[in-house]
Amino acid sequence: MMDYDRFLSSTGRQLAESAIRRMGTVVARSTTDLVSFAPGYPAPELFPWSELRDISAALMNGTHPDALQYGPTRGYEPLLEAIVGISAERGITASANELLITSGSQQGIDLIARVMVSPGDVVLVELPTFTGGIAAFRNAQAELVGVRQDASGISIDALDEAWQRARRAGKSVKLLYVIPNFQNPTGVLLDLGRRPQIVEWASRRDILIVEDDPYGSLYFEDAASERETLPLRAQDPDGRVLYLSTFSKTLAPGFRVGWVHAPPSLVDRFETAKQSTDLTSGILDQRLVYEAVRQGVVRALAPRLRALYARKRDVMEQAIRAHIGDRLTWSSPRGGFFVWATLPPGYSDNVLLDRALAHGVIFVSGSAFFVDGTGHDTIRLSFSAPSVDRIGEGIRRLAAAMDV
Amino acid sequence: MMDYDRFLSSTGRQLAESAIRRMGTVVARSTTDLVSFAPGYPAPELFPWSELRDISAALMNGTHPDALQYGPTRGYEPLLEAIVGISAERGITASANELLITSGSQQGIDLIARVMVSPGDVVLVELPTFTGGIAAFRNAQAELVGVRQDASGISIDALDEAWQRARRAGKSVKLLYVIPNFQNPTGVLLDLGRRPQIVEWASRRDILIVEDDPYGSLYFEDAASERETLPLRAQDPDGRVLYLSTFSKTLAPGFRVGWVHAPPSLVDRFETAKQSTDLTSGILDQRLVYEAVRQGVVRALAPRLRALYARKRDVMEQAIRAHIGDRLTWSSPRGGFFVWATLPPGYSDNVLLDRALAHGVIFVSGSAFFVDGTGHDTIRLSFSAPSVDRIGEGIRRLAAAMDV
Repeated sequence: MMDYDRFLSSTGRQLAESAIRRMGTVVARSTTDLVSFAPGYPAPELFPWSELRDISAALMNGTHPDALQYGPTRGYEPLLEAIVGISAERGITASANELLITSGSQQGIDLIARVMVSPGDVVLVELPTFTGGIAAFRNAQAELVGVRQDASGISIDALDEAWQRARRAGKSVKLLYVIPNFQNPTGVLLDLGRRPQIVEWASRRDILIVEDDPYGSLYFEDAASERETLPLRAQDPDGRVLYLSTFSKTLAPGFRVGWVHAPPSLVDRFETAKQSTDLTSGILDQRLVYEAVRQGVVRALAPRLRALYARKRDVMEQAIRAHIGDRLTWSSPRGGFFVWATLPPGYSDNVLLDRALAHGVIFVSGSAFFVDGTGHDTIRLSFSAPSVDRIGEGIRRLAAAMDV
Repeated sequence: MMDYDRFLSSTGRQLAESAIRRMGTVVARSTTDLVSFAPGYPAPELFPWSELRDISAALMNGTHPDALQYGPTRGYEPLLEAIVGISAERGITASANELLITSGSQQGIDLIARVMVSPGDVVLVELPTFTGGIAAFRNAQAELVGVRQDASGISIDALDEAWQRARRAGKSVKLLYVIPNFQNPTGVLLDLGRRPQIVEWASRRDILIVEDDPYGSLYFEDAASERETLPLRAQDPDGRVLYLSTFSKTLAPGFRVGWVHAPPSLVDRFETAKQSTDLTSGILDQRLVYEAVRQGVVRALAPRLRALYARKRDVMEQAIRAHIGDRLTWSSPRGGFFVWATLPPGYSDNVLLDRALAHGVIFVSGSAFFVDGTGHDTIRLSFSAPSVDRIGEGIRRLAAAMDV
């Protein structure tokens, strides 16, 4: 058997793996009756099957030869125009020449990392933050520095301290990566008043912000309002914010259609980088998504998604209170997919995960989201995908796993 | 207006653009009646619309919740198994743990470049070669060294000379990138007898081969046989060959579904790199492609594609002989998508392209495929996408553009 290690690049030797993706593989390969609170998968019960079936039948009626052909790297032009409209609904003024369709938001993060991060550059991130962001920036050989969050989101004092520390160490601080709306993994909604302050801080310190916004429209109407989800990009007079979003949570993730909104000179570079990465995102997918937007399917879905996820959150919280009680502590999420919970003294995320797996339930260890090696007293429980019945069953199993 | 250049990485500053992709954008934006011999787009008239419409209706009937969900990064497992079968038909023994689904072959090249090429590593390529390969390796900061081809493909003497020259200069030579079947852009079919010699040479010099095989099944039955397209990977006792292929040319490119076949230890790394690149290739696309394979759609299409492309080649060659005569010289392609033509003295590819555009026809300048700055006396004419009538019209326009 040949040893291939000598053929690896420095990147290839140090590849960072996403803990969430690894759990996804565990779920896919599981043959037992596992309840998964691990990957943040959307609720399949609201995928709009009949609408999408009609749309795909129309697209494949033989009169749209371009629907299965290669297309422009930039994206399907009507979809780019539709995203201008979606941006406006979020308070963001965009033009098509500032947009690039990406193969999910993950590709947006990856393109930004490749085009902007040189080995050793510092990227500031929330502590904890999304593992896919961590992996993409690490694979560009960024140094990730975590910044403390409180119940209102990332702390500006901590942000500036981290910046100053990095600068004193002679490092180049390029980017701040944030998820202001119902953050992954904590579910935190960044305080509305703090948002312009962060943009102002970025201008003062001359860095750029990467704003990742997959969950903004999934606020729970009993606990948050659309107004509170106003993106940083909507309050960005100097062009400091690169904005990422996706249709994965508002329509379906199987399409792999997201977008980057950034200044034209940067979008041009991202487009060039995308050329050699995958030529173009799936054309049929882009056209299906475009039709779902144009025909109002995406718009009609949003309130139903908000209601369903709020109900699943309720079910999970009630089940935790009933079966686990005060051994878990958490703040009630005001939107999004996640309950972020702290374990009692004496428990450790990875040990509990092994025990939970034996009881037929999984989650993601909190430490996977911390770039500083801490967080072993936390776990992320996604309530988005399992049915209401399965959520109750999974929490009962987790309670049993904690009873040792 | 802010200047964003200071935020770019070294990669971001030096991004290589694909000339073919640029032409694709020209075509997409053109409002005039342009005949395009530029991008190697498949013939849309053979996209199997009715079969795919039925498949997609069945997948979206609401009983397949996973069809629009996230899926494993490795790929949809039944499709991986189907590719084991396709590999066997090509003389290749594969197992599912050696395969990774990629977002088109382009992503396969990109993942290999990221995982295996450190800045300054030498990658040997055919002279000329595919611009998408050039861009992906350049964006990993490879040094590309072109190796002369003759009518039978890449020359082993020239290969070894290039290797020795690089080694004398103290460089690390990691990979040889080749397109043995109906090469892009030359259309050359690598001689069957030479194939095992190249693999043997790679073992002797301890480098790996990246074999890109999008066109293997598109041999023209009057000029080549399936036997002559036997991949290098089928004759690879030591595991020197990383094999790439795609459904873009045998089904449709809008799906963005290709694959890498490589030793398991490398495929694991490519999978990890893919996680942070786009999480997973489109799930609906993978399932549509899988059903098209399982139901025999792909198999039934192959002889029809061979016949159609052979006919289009005939039409293009006859039109060139009728309208341009001996001002263009070329070898008749035995498969694939391209006529690779040499211009008469006094003509230059880019000057002719400007003139051709004014006459309503485009192609790709030959020099775009040469990593050494030469090739300005060549052009690539794709006969794959335009209809038979349009091919004749395009060549008449090209003849007019040459009449100056």
